[in-house]
Amino acid sequence: MGGRGLTSSILLDEVNAGCYPLGEENKLIIAPGLLAGTTLSSSNRLSVGAKSPLTGGIKESNSGGMIAYKLARLGIKAIIFEGKSEQPIPLTIKIDKNGITFEKDPEIKGHNCYYSAEKLFEKYGSKVGIMVIGSAGERRLATACINCTDTNGEPCRVLGRGGMGAVMGSKGIKAIIIDDKEVQSNLQKDPKIKELIKKFAGELRGNIVTGEFFPKYGTARTLMIVNSLGGLPTRNFSLGTFEKAENISGEKMAELISSRGGKTTHNCMPGCVIRCSNTFVDKNGAKVVSSLEYETLCLMGSNLGIDNLDDIAILNKLCNDYGVDTMDIGAALGVLAEAGIMEFGDANKAIELVKEIGKGTNLGRIIASGAGTCGKVYGIERVPVVKNQAMAAYDPRVIKGNGVTYATSPMGADHTYANTIILQIDHLDPKGKVEASKNLQIFTAVLDTLGFCIFTARAFLTKPSFLEEIVNAYTGWKVTFDELNEMGKTILLKERKFNEKAGFTKFHDRLPGYFKREPLKPNNVVFDVKDEELDTIFN
Amino acid sequence: MGGRGLTSSILLDEVNAGCYPLGEENKLIIAPGLLAGTTLSSSNRLSVGAKSPLTGGIKESNSGGMIAYKLARLGIKAIIFEGKSEQPIPLTIKIDKNGITFEKDPEIKGHNCYYSAEKLFEKYGSKVGIMVIGSAGERRLATACINCTDTNGEPCRVLGRGGMGAVMGSKGIKAIIIDDKEVQSNLQKDPKIKELIKKFAGELRGNIVTGEFFPKYGTARTLMIVNSLGGLPTRNFSLGTFEKAENISGEKMAELISSRGGKTTHNCMPGCVIRCSNTFVDKNGAKVVSSLEYETLCLMGSNLGIDNLDDIAILNKLCNDYGVDTMDIGAALGVLAEAGIMEFGDANKAIELVKEIGKGTNLGRIIASGAGTCGKVYGIERVPVVKNQAMAAYDPRVIKGNGVTYATSPMGADHTYANTIILQIDHLDPKGKVEASKNLQIFTAVLDTLGFCIFTARAFLTKPSFLEEIVNAYTGWKVTFDELNEMGKTILLKERKFNEKAGFTKFHDRLPGYFKREPLKPNNVVFDVKDEELDTIFN
Repeated sequence: MGGRGLTSSILLDEVNAGCYPLGEENKLIIAPGLLAGTTLSSSNRLSVGAKSPLTGGIKESNSGGMIAYKLARLGIKAIIFEGKSEQPIPLTIKIDKNGITFEKDPEIKGHNCYYSAEKLFEKYGSKVGIMVIGSAGERRLATACINCTDTNGEPCRVLGRGGMGAVMGSKGIKAIIIDDKEVQSNLQKDPKIKELIKKFAGELRGNIVTGEFFPKYGTARTLMIVNSLGGLPTRNFSLGTFEKAENISGEKMAELISSRGGKTTHNCMPGCVIRCSNTFVDKNGAKVVSSLEYETLCLMGSNLGIDNLDDIAILNKLCNDYGVDTMDIGAALGVLAEAGIMEFGDANKAIELVKEIGKGTNLGRIIASGAGTCGKVYGIERVPVVKNQAMAAYDPRVIKGNGVTYATSPMGADHTYANTIILQIDHLDPKGKVEASKNLQIFTAVLDTLGFCIFTARAFLTKPSFLEEIVNAYTGWKVTFDELNEMGKTILLKERKFNEKAGFTKFHDRLPGYFKREPLKPNNVVFDVKDEELDTIFN
Repeated sequence: MGGRGLTSSILLDEVNAGCYPLGEENKLIIAPGLLAGTTLSSSNRLSVGAKSPLTGGIKESNSGGMIAYKLARLGIKAIIFEGKSEQPIPLTIKIDKNGITFEKDPEIKGHNCYYSAEKLFEKYGSKVGIMVIGSAGERRLATACINCTDTNGEPCRVLGRGGMGAVMGSKGIKAIIIDDKEVQSNLQKDPKIKELIKKFAGELRGNIVTGEFFPKYGTARTLMIVNSLGGLPTRNFSLGTFEKAENISGEKMAELISSRGGKTTHNCMPGCVIRCSNTFVDKNGAKVVSSLEYETLCLMGSNLGIDNLDDIAILNKLCNDYGVDTMDIGAALGVLAEAGIMEFGDANKAIELVKEIGKGTNLGRIIASGAGTCGKVYGIERVPVVKNQAMAAYDPRVIKGNGVTYATSPMGADHTYANTIILQIDHLDPKGKVEASKNLQIFTAVLDTLGFCIFTARAFLTKPSFLEEIVNAYTGWKVTFDELNEMGKTILLKERKFNEKAGFTKFHDRLPGYFKREPLKPNNVVFDVKDEELDTIFN
């Protein structure tokens, strides 16, 4: 076990599901994927688990960056933080080949992620990996992230969802330093592994999506596709197409970045050949943010009626710096726009509102508590959340398989636990979507446990034997693809069990009522997967 | 059926438990108690039911005042508001012997309860009964109340808990006028009923609590008793005794009111002989608020470390005027004090914070969303809520029967659904408290259905045959006390059923973990009624 399989198992076994998420009974569990530690493409994902202060249920948040790779090289399967710190000064935890040390870096207290990472690199050396929280995590706000440094040392690979940064803050931890210097990896030198790494890279490069579209346009290429399907969340999920979608498309962004001398492609993890990341630069060629992704382009773009990439990049950068989830914050601003606090399309106001988070004002606290809290405090019905977590950039009335994922994932509304957009299916037809989401939820649990990026799903679903070959070579096991899926099922059921003990029932596996009642233009469709069918998913 | 029995039955039968509480699917149901409409003491309580925006579960909120009496005289069993108003101007609903009319009173839009009531009396006559919401209800905030006018025409009898004012606001209704002029009551003239009214008044007058303590000191007499038991919530439920308790005691208050020429006793409903209400006046003898009650004295007094009755009266008046629940707001301020937003004991700051509600600022919205939301937005663990509703003025670690009520009542933490303080039991001993709370929850459901004030419980539990005699005389039935209790059970199970469909499980029937973990001084006790025992209560 590694990654999500490990974090979820430990949570079910060791944590009182009824506990206060920011209290001493919760645990923060950091686990690299099972296969992490080599330059095998897309295999160095990191899982962080805890009871979520946002959803009140189990959470595994997942990111790229350098951390899983370095932890695995140090031979570390998991780090578990228990109890609660009574230290007034936030701790820095340093982990290297000699073990763990507790450091104090009072000069970064209250500071945000970019400044903190810079200071930490100065002190601990430029080669370390850093996990850090911003002011939002220190304030224990429910959308607070943990930021991980990427291959360039930028703290931009984000454990974004469900408030893992708040849990880290509640333990009194500001930063974790992973130093793998002087560590040797026998695995990486193994000729058989070397061969596999090469073969897998070739496989991914040979696929049109992972070999061409992602490297060229990043995840943002999805935007025009979802827009053409009529499922692009626009103006607080009130429309399925954005009339200015082209302005924030992957194609437009790649062109703009290229013309300004930014990077349209790079890898967030060692060895990754998909290289879906980018570096967005301003008109002077200066870096603004890395990486501007589809989910942010939609939730802070079309969802707010904003069509200017420079504005969205600034919003993204601010969120990264404060350490909050761009998706839940984008959804929160959409709710506030519906409440009349900002006009849709007013990017300056959106930036001003996000800056409230950094200032820690009451409004900033409301926003950084997520879209669900915004809806409560402002008395708004149209709040696109499930289990209090904001939906991703696919309107569930159109991309119905993702609607099933939002409703039934133990993690709350989240595309990454089964993104059915990758399937060649009629997304508008409710038939078969429970089955589609279920199978993908199971397989995604496998990928999250192994440490694979979900963008490898296409390759492995096309050639399951390849996954068997890799897993068996890395672990010495003899597992089949079906056995791996059985493991995935077990993990999902464990997560479900945790949530049951935290008080969740089938009635929490529902989209907000208005998605079933209010037709979405231009397809004029509602979410019409039946409740009874949703309830069969975990049978 | 009447009162709570009726509101809860209609909710279970007609309302989708999963609906958005402030949306078109919810219903607001107003029902006088079954026996209302005569001057029988303490029998004119009003029930208002809806799915609660505060708890997300079923809610029956209950108050005295003139409304139930007048509705019953008009022969009205229930008023049900369905759907959602799209009217820009809040409606006034007028009900008299000719039926219902829809009026517009744009001049009270956005105004608070006292001003609005004054204007409405001017327009509709001084003899009508008024239900009105303040700015908090118009803003649809989760602790918003509906205020009912009392025997003096003051809008101070409050349907306080669970956000019924927000539901009324979501329906676009600002006020409801009940005009019973030219209505004759045959019941009131019936010699047998007249005799019963007299006999029951004598019974209540003969009891030391309802005949002496309540008329003399009001509910505030409870304060020194609970303080001496070590169960008086003090400084956000961190202590069980308040060193300055005497300054805010019923005895002290009665003395102060008397010395200033205020009223230490009067009745909120026609015919009530318990007369537990008072009119608190300032040092110049001018009215501040009616009635200053125990729960407010504690939650806005000892719970905030405030020991000045004048300050508490101002806090109470402000809450009444804006139309928010003094209990949830008091608990919210306690949480904010723990978050460092105010100092315990700083009454001026507390007043300033409550005024934020009236201004509708972001901080005001946070506060008026209740203690639970304050805890989330400020990352505070010690939040005394169950099902997101604030506890009443009895620390559950000491008054353990009330702890059982808080945990298991379908309504959330609320003493009025079974206040075991009235029982002659060892409150500190966990044994038998589930049974005690259960029996009282059942009997309270009976009283709430009949329209009796819970202060009649002592009289009826001592002399059950008296209750049978009254009910049978008023209804023509032939029910026994046991049969009434069976009805009470049925009502509770219906409420439980609604909550189950809204997603509640036994895991929601729990106090926050710190009540089980952190001993309360001076008794150094935790809440130690076992979860397994709590779970037997609805078997």
